Amino acid sequence: MELKSKDLLDIKSLDREEINLFLDSAESFKEVTGRDIKKVPTLRGKTVVNLFFEPSTRTRTSFEIAAKRLSADVINFSISGSSMSKGESLLDTARNIEAMSSDFIIIRHSASGAPHMLAQCLKSSVINAGDGSHEHPTQALLDLVTIKERKGGIEGLKVAIIGDIAHSRVARSNIYGLTKLGAEVRVAGPPALIPAEIESTGVSVFYNLKEALSDVDVIMVLRLQLERQGKNYFPTTREYARLYCLTAERIRDAKEDVMIMHPGPINRGIEISPEVADGLSSVILEQVTNGIAVRMGVLYLLGGRGEA
Amino acid sequence: MELKSKDLLDIKSLDREEINLFLDSAESFKEVTGRDIKKVPTLRGKTVVNLFFEPSTRTRTSFEIAAKRLSADVINFSISGSSMSKGESLLDTARNIEAMSSDFIIIRHSASGAPHMLAQCLKSSVINAGDGSHEHPTQALLDLVTIKERKGGIEGLKVAIIGDIAHSRVARSNIYGLTKLGAEVRVAGPPALIPAEIESTGVSVFYNLKEALSDVDVIMVLRLQLERQGKNYFPTTREYARLYCLTAERIRDAKEDVMIMHPGPINRGIEISPEVADGLSSVILEQVTNGIAVRMGVLYLLGGRGEA
Amino acid sequence: MELKSKDLLDIKSLDREEINLFLDSAESFKEVTGRDIKKVPTLRGKTVVNLFFEPSTRTRTSFEIAAKRLSADVINFSISGSSMSKGESLLDTARNIEAMSSDFIIIRHSASGAPHMLAQCLKSSVINAGDGSHEHPTQALLDLVTIKERKGGIEGLKVAIIGDIAHSRVARSNIYGLTKLGAEVRVAGPPALIPAEIESTGVSVFYNLKEALSDVDVIMVLRLQLERQGKNYFPTTREYARLYCLTAERIRDAKEDVMIMHPGPINRGIEISPEVADGLSSVILEQVTNGIAVRMGVLYLLGGRGEA
Repeated sequence: MELKSKDLLDIKSLDREEINLFLDSAESFKEVTGRDIKKVPTLRGKTVVNLFFEPSTRTRTSFEIAAKRLSADVINFSISGSSMSKGESLLDTARNIEAMSSDFIIIRHSASGAPHMLAQCLKSSVINAGDGSHEHPTQALLDLVTIKERKGGIEGLKVAIIGDIAHSRVARSNIYGLTKLGAEVRVAGPPALIPAEIESTGVSVFYNLKEALSDVDVIMVLRLQLERQGKNYFPTTREYARLYCLTAERIRDAKEDVMIMHPGPINRGIEISPEVADGLSSVILEQVTNGIAVRMGVLYLLGGRGEA
Repeated sequence: MELKSKDLLDIKSLDREEINLFLDSAESFKEVTGRDIKKVPTLRGKTVVNLFFEPSTRTRTSFEIAAKRLSADVINFSISGSSMSKGESLLDTARNIEAMSSDFIIIRHSASGAPHMLAQCLKSSVINAGDGSHEHPTQALLDLVTIKERKGGIEGLKVAIIGDIAHSRVARSNIYGLTKLGAEVRVAGPPALIPAEIESTGVSVFYNLKEALSDVDVIMVLRLQLERQGKNYFPTTREYARLYCLTAERIRDAKEDVMIMHPGPINRGIEISPEVADGLSSVILEQVTNGIAVRMGVLYLLGGRGEA
Repeated sequence: MELKSKDLLDIKSLDREEINLFLDSAESFKEVTGRDIKKVPTLRGKTVVNLFFEPSTRTRTSFEIAAKRLSADVINFSISGSSMSKGESLLDTARNIEAMSSDFIIIRHSASGAPHMLAQCLKSSVINAGDGSHEHPTQALLDLVTIKERKGGIEGLKVAIIGDIAHSRVARSNIYGLTKLGAEVRVAGPPALIPAEIESTGVSVFYNLKEALSDVDVIMVLRLQLERQGKNYFPTTREYARLYCLTAERIRDAKEDVMIMHPGPINRGIEISPEVADGLSSVILEQVTNGIAVRMGVLYLLGGRGEA
């Protein structure tokens, strides 16, 4: 079994076997992260470039830590102090980075499709760390690993994704990943935040949270982008919280052993109540821990492609 | 002899033996810094996170160099480009970092007590790199190492600390460290910059620089925060300099072999004259050099706690 | 054969043998960059500090990658978040860095001569990564390596440098390097962008691009600083492009095997047309690749000075 692509651009184009390959690899690297010396020589002498055009804490740091634990050299490409402000195109910037013999380019960009464009033009492995409202494939992989760890598998699970489905690359990548692995996916949120065509991806749409949560195994709460408030999407965060904030009372509609996920950073009291975020059903910090193992696995698999 | 805490939060809560343990460790690492290959494998596979919420040059760089010379992986956590601007709480940010299997979190924060709050909630070793106007323990340790090196010991020395005592975490940490090790500490500065309760820490207060400097072994000059000018603390920097700038003439009141210290960066001609800052009595650059060794020692001791 | 200086400050003060030593060293490190494991232990335990006072992408990244491939520890000194904003002088900042046992300080600064001033006061090796409109010696070295690779040598070649000669440190360093190695150098551009005294360096001046390009082996296009538009240097970028943009038609005046160079980042359609920048004669990305090897060579030679 081998990956078809040198890149990880989205979940949509992966088949079930490829997704499972990534999940298995993450599980084996999770052991490294638990060791006293959390470092293996896998990518010694390789160069990983973090090319982030949107501010990010956890994703950039997570990739940086993952790459360093594989012994790669990591270069953080600062955007504000970069040539982009001198008007250079994204492709010229990326070609220049590759000319320095980069092996991996990890890109976050506000334009959907930016990583795909780079991947076509470059020999380096390109990893999408979030492109616009399109996809965020490593987030979906770490969510899948976390669910598998708790539930033993994905097939047949009922998963509710709650919030701004329309603008969420996390939702989109998870919908592809979960349905490919046989879960039943529901989405719920204010009507203006659920795209019209979403049912074609195989999910069911709910506008009422109580119905959406009924009997589910997993609840994924999305971060509410507060800056969308008042722009015809939802009137106020207060009104949003009244209808969609995941509270302890509301999760009683789900299965008793429901697990609660959130990609972070959380807005406490808006999309999720503090007692739920910090409660026993929450796996929010396990998601972060699994993010390192997933990204180590992704770097390992893309780096070794065609070699073994 | 073992440290009582997994963290280094302040000097106030350390006893004399613990302080000496840190000083001894720094002295042994100083030898590494003088080698041709300035690197030991002590912290290989460990992750050190620099979490700086205030701009800093020398302290962040000093910790980064110290950690790298111990072979740790270092992650610099950029604050402006971080989740904090998305409204995430300090504790959520720190919990997320820890979920990535960090071993050390080095924090600088404008809020006094921020490192203590983190230390209580996290398993990682937390090192305070300066919290508000509270403490800056590694600065005091490096100052103590530098004094010991020049004077052979601390006990019985007369030390004058000059400047804005009220707002200085450097002053506070040094007062605890010096008095615990048996030095006689004097503080001097404009009345509005000396806190009312300071004598309870065992120091003597002087408003006249000549009297404060009489017969002292060590003079520590504090950096004047120029932005306080005109805010009822002191009228102008010119007036401040006239009364408190450490000049060659003024140090004649001290012992002949007096040593002159400053935590940097210096305001030449305001709190210290260029000829004193660059003179033979000045150990300002030795303080910087010792900062690396002190921080290597702190990381080493906290990292090895309970293991040997 | 040994370098006379611990520093690399400019090309002007190097003799032909020293330049060739740098070029030979780059060629031998180029092999390392092509390996699967692009890393050698040459500078293990050494500390390289990137001290950049001007925004830069490729030069800082290139030095960082070069140093890491030599196994050095690299510290990026962030300027906006630094003591400089607290009013510390450049020399105090550099002395503090050196007190942390730095081995190399790589500096980019808007003031011509800043690296020379540091080099005089510090024991660390200082490398000029661009000072004002003075020199950018590693850029010239990488350009020379690239020309030698394609043309087999420098002696006797006809080289045209096109654009804002007056403000270009790239032009200045290349003029010294090329003439020392025996090339015939022509400069061309709008009269207001060609300094009066330039002919004293041994170059010929052209205001007409067609004449300048006649029969040349190498064309170096300089980046146009768009912010100079309308400041008496040139009226508009459109007018500049009409007269000086290097197009496919214009390079027909050069030799058939002419090579096209640009230090990047390029303004497509202003100083160079996209078809020329991306065409077969262009070596723009090879320049970037050679930049890594050149900087590895420079660090290696300066680091080993006086040791072998």
